Amino acid sequence: MDRRALLRSALFSAGAAAAGAGIAHADDGANAPEWMKTPGRPFSAYGTPSKWQEKVQRILTINPGRAGTGVSRTPLHLLEGTITPAGLHFERHHNGVPDIDPAQHELFIHGLVKRPLAFSLDTLLRYPLETRIHFIECAGNSGAYTQPQPQQITAGEINGLLSCSEWTGVKLATLLAEAGVSAEAKWVIAEGADAAAMSRSIPLEKCLDDAMIALYQNGEAIRPEQGFPMRLLLPGFEGNMSVKWLRRLNVTDAPVNARDETSHYTELMPSGKARQFMFAEAAKSVILKPSFGMTMKGPGLYEVSGLAWSGAGRVAKVEVSADGGRTWALAALNEPVLPKALTRFRLPWKWDGQPSTLMSRATDQTGDVQPTRASWIAQYAPGQGYHFSGIQSWAIEADGTVKNVYA
Amino acid sequence: MDRRALLRSALFSAGAAAAGAGIAHADDGANAPEWMKTPGRPFSAYGTPSKWQEKVQRILTINPGRAGTGVSRTPLHLLEGTITPAGLHFERHHNGVPDIDPAQHELFIHGLVKRPLAFSLDTLLRYPLETRIHFIECAGNSGAYTQPQPQQITAGEINGLLSCSEWTGVKLATLLAEAGVSAEAKWVIAEGADAAAMSRSIPLEKCLDDAMIALYQNGEAIRPEQGFPMRLLLPGFEGNMSVKWLRRLNVTDAPVNARDETSHYTELMPSGKARQFMFAEAAKSVILKPSFGMTMKGPGLYEVSGLAWSGAGRVAKVEVSADGGRTWALAALNEPVLPKALTRFRLPWKWDGQPSTLMSRATDQTGDVQPTRASWIAQYAPGQGYHFSGIQSWAIEADGTVKNVYA
Repeated sequence: MDRRALLRSALFSAGAAAAGAGIAHADDGANAPEWMKTPGRPFSAYGTPSKWQEKVQRILTINPGRAGTGVSRTPLHLLEGTITPAGLHFERHHNGVPDIDPAQHELFIHGLVKRPLAFSLDTLLRYPLETRIHFIECAGNSGAYTQPQPQQITAGEINGLLSCSEWTGVKLATLLAEAGVSAEAKWVIAEGADAAAMSRSIPLEKCLDDAMIALYQNGEAIRPEQGFPMRLLLPGFEGNMSVKWLRRLNVTDAPVNARDETSHYTELMPSGKARQFMFAEAAKSVILKPSFGMTMKGPGLYEVSGLAWSGAGRVAKVEVSADGGRTWALAALNEPVLPKALTRFRLPWKWDGQPSTLMSRATDQTGDVQPTRASWIAQYAPGQGYHFSGIQSWAIEADGTVKNVYA
Repeated sequence: MDRRALLRSALFSAGAAAAGAGIAHADDGANAPEWMKTPGRPFSAYGTPSKWQEKVQRILTINPGRAGTGVSRTPLHLLEGTITPAGLHFERHHNGVPDIDPAQHELFIHGLVKRPLAFSLDTLLRYPLETRIHFIECAGNSGAYTQPQPQQITAGEINGLLSCSEWTGVKLATLLAEAGVSAEAKWVIAEGADAAAMSRSIPLEKCLDDAMIALYQNGEAIRPEQGFPMRLLLPGFEGNMSVKWLRRLNVTDAPVNARDETSHYTELMPSGKARQFMFAEAAKSVILKPSFGMTMKGPGLYEVSGLAWSGAGRVAKVEVSADGGRTWALAALNEPVLPKALTRFRLPWKWDGQPSTLMSRATDQTGDVQPTRASWIAQYAPGQGYHFSGIQSWAIEADGTVKNVYA
């Protein structure tokens, strides 16, 4: 396993078949595939994925007896690159997806400000816009890894409360400057226009830094499930704080202690006390190829690839181990490596057919290193499942099957 | 018009309304909008845009009497950022969209090679992958600008044969190395598995440079309309060469002179001779906001924004003029500025309410500067409509309407 080893193509030859018969076939119009013999289907105004990809869907978990609440996970193990298609972006549902008439929607900025302001969508579109690529990760992502036994579920089921988009919107600092924030202000309470009136307290400092009122996602108007017509985007912070269908920003001197920052999203410590307001997502990575559900097709050269990210900035490096963490090799990071964005890593690996344990370990620009699962778990009270960022492991068995293991 | 002028937010105040009444409204649950009073709609496995966005569609032109041929343009003027949603990616249709069973599809590499090879999709997925953001632009894009009179149509209608995606696939050079290219090889003939058997001749040099067999687009499997299960991607070259539904790469010592490189996509010169094989798209830019179909809402501060790109590499700078090209100001380029990718530029502009003519002018890293329309036109025989890259102009009239003009 060595990033610098040239990927001499001959090593892959086993994968390709000699093409003699195929070429004869290709050259003979009579034997052309059926889709070359008849005109294809007509144009569409808005395209959709191939029917052959119908299994590439969000993984839905609807809370029993509570319609409109649950999660939709991104099937990370079926995707590639770093951008998540908007149709597959993860969701954490609190009371369904509201259908908001954008012409009726307003964003209010009020509280400890000199000039309370109301913004229509059209008004916001007059402001200078910014475009940035950022991930959003739910605080509960990878919580399955805090279970006592490793669960035999896919990488998307474990880690799919994570997506990455190109966001375009108005810098929140611009709007707050216009409203005139009072000297005693310390927090901003964000509230959504959904039936859950989702509310979170956000440090004013973050709102004046890289917070955005996002209006576009991957080039088009933000989707209803992501907050149409506007959402708050707090790059690198736990996803729940990037309040969707944003309606109010109430500038205050204290947090509101909303349900989702008291009964949820806190970290229970061994002492029995809970840490509140742990906002930034830690340096983290996961191998997606290979991962549970895939089967290695015999010894040979494979590409190991996955995603790395950090709420603190750029990913500095990703190391990969094929021997359960005894030795590590540096993976290549797909350029551009952007701050608070998913980064794809890749590394060629020659599998000898023996049982092996694959792991990845991310380090971010601040020097934060992904800990082992055991050391992550040891920080908390039993059952504390938020903000899991420990190293994940896939065992490759001699028959090529891939299992989730705690190594 | 000055990029360095701080966008003091007070300048935008006219846009926002004092929120006194609104806040009282927001605080009173009884007056909450209807979508806060009832649970929202349930989860979906694959999301779609808001129903309020139904006009954001591809702009279809079906050739009369020739079903399955025509164009679908990206509505650039309705989008933001730089990534094009896959559902809105432009298309140039030759014989409809084939429905290819990926398990039946093969890619053949043959001709002047030591080992002819056939690749299934599964086989290709064993190879090292690369992820890169690149635009594709049709050679006929902006051809409306070569008409004698300026047409009053949208920026998307004029320039929408242009889209940008995050592509993931296998470097073609890797596969050619495995096949073993013969010393006398100079060209590669690419053929699609569609009912038009679309064929183009590609210099071998490009195939050994940054050409890719693209398998994923914006994170998911490439869409049928973009070439599912695989397309050739030739970054920066005219889009027609990035053959969709790629089936064959025939390595040869001479071009095949296919229909789309003889009767189409050549440049008719004043001498009556045609220049063939002009592949790379030139440095180019277009202002999208404001543009035809929009109305300025009175004097005040606006953001002028648009897209710039070059088939030769990175955009080095974009200049914007509000006085028909007499004076120019540097626009800000949205980071990251990537090679052969769309780059968003932005510039604040204080409109005084007087008639004005907006223009943008791109320069790329090679020093290629976007020419005036007149100097571009002067290079060619009348009616030569391919590869238009001249400066485009929007006239802002005193009443705020925006018109297409040749300035």
